[in-house]
Amino acid sequence: CPCPLPHGDCALSRLLRRLLSARRSLEICLFAFSSPQLGHAVRLLHRRGVRVRIVTDAQYMGLQGSQIGLLRHAGIQVRHDQESGYMHHKFAIVDRRTLITGSLNWTTQAIQNNRENVLVMEDAEYVKPFLDEFERIWEEYNPVNYRFF
Amino acid sequence: CPCPLPHGDCALSRLLRRLLSARRSLEICLFAFSSPQLGHAVRLLHRRGVRVRIVTDAQYMGLQGSQIGLLRHAGIQVRHDQESGYMHHKFAIVDRRTLITGSLNWTTQAIQNNRENVLVMEDAEYVKPFLDEFERIWEEYNPVNYRFF
Repeated sequence: CPCPLPHGDCALSRLLRRLLSARRSLEICLFAFSSPQLGHAVRLLHRRGVRVRIVTDAQYMGLQGSQIGLLRHAGIQVRHDQESGYMHHKFAIVDRRTLITGSLNWTTQAIQNNRENVLVMEDAEYVKPFLDEFERIWEEYNPVNYRFF
Repeated sequence: CPCPLPHGDCALSRLLRRLLSARRSLEICLFAFSSPQLGHAVRLLHRRGVRVRIVTDAQYMGLQGSQIGLLRHAGIQVRHDQESGYMHHKFAIVDRRTLITGSLNWTTQAIQNNRENVLVMEDAEYVKPFLDEFERIWEEYNPVNYRFF
């Protein structure tokens, strides 16, 4: 990237731009979400009327710095796994058309300090399996299906 | 997937088949590598004369169960980061043509218990940036560039 920003800032700004292009819907499926800037952008989209749905990992969502509580407080629907394994996906889908996926969790540590990759794809052949996976686990993690006993 | 295997075994078997198709080269760039089956497959490819190169994370490669020591012992070249951030990529490239990437670390925990995604792509538009990243960090992590003092 030829831009003058430090690499992490440049990557963050490109990711923000993609997300903020959402007009109708945003599905987010993230193991860890603690970046304040990305949390702010998602709340902004929700206020603009974009339908935001988030799936995350139960063990990570309560850790210090997690954005999940703030997102829920803003009225955004969040669901989480109920398994001992991790919900380890790291993807988002903008307007059911653009898939953003890779190794990157949405954390400041990852954006600023790690070696990471993020793919942005519009080919239906790649987007559809991720949309299907989102809808599948969105239903699976519906609180009405909780097994407390 | 319609096969009769449990999901994790099916995913592992599909990944193994992709890897074992390598005839000339295999680049591996992995945060965590502890799956015995995948370690075995990589050593097999090395013995068959496939050029195997591995980049991994310095903090994770020494953890109990890591395959990295066994792979080095087999004569496979391994390089690692020297940074406080994580080398968090999870991709492999078969014969410079097939990219395998996603959220999956090559660990039994991830394969058997986590929700993960793995993309397999042959489009040069996606493969080339990953090949370029591999060559860039392969050089950057060359031991001749170590800064001990």
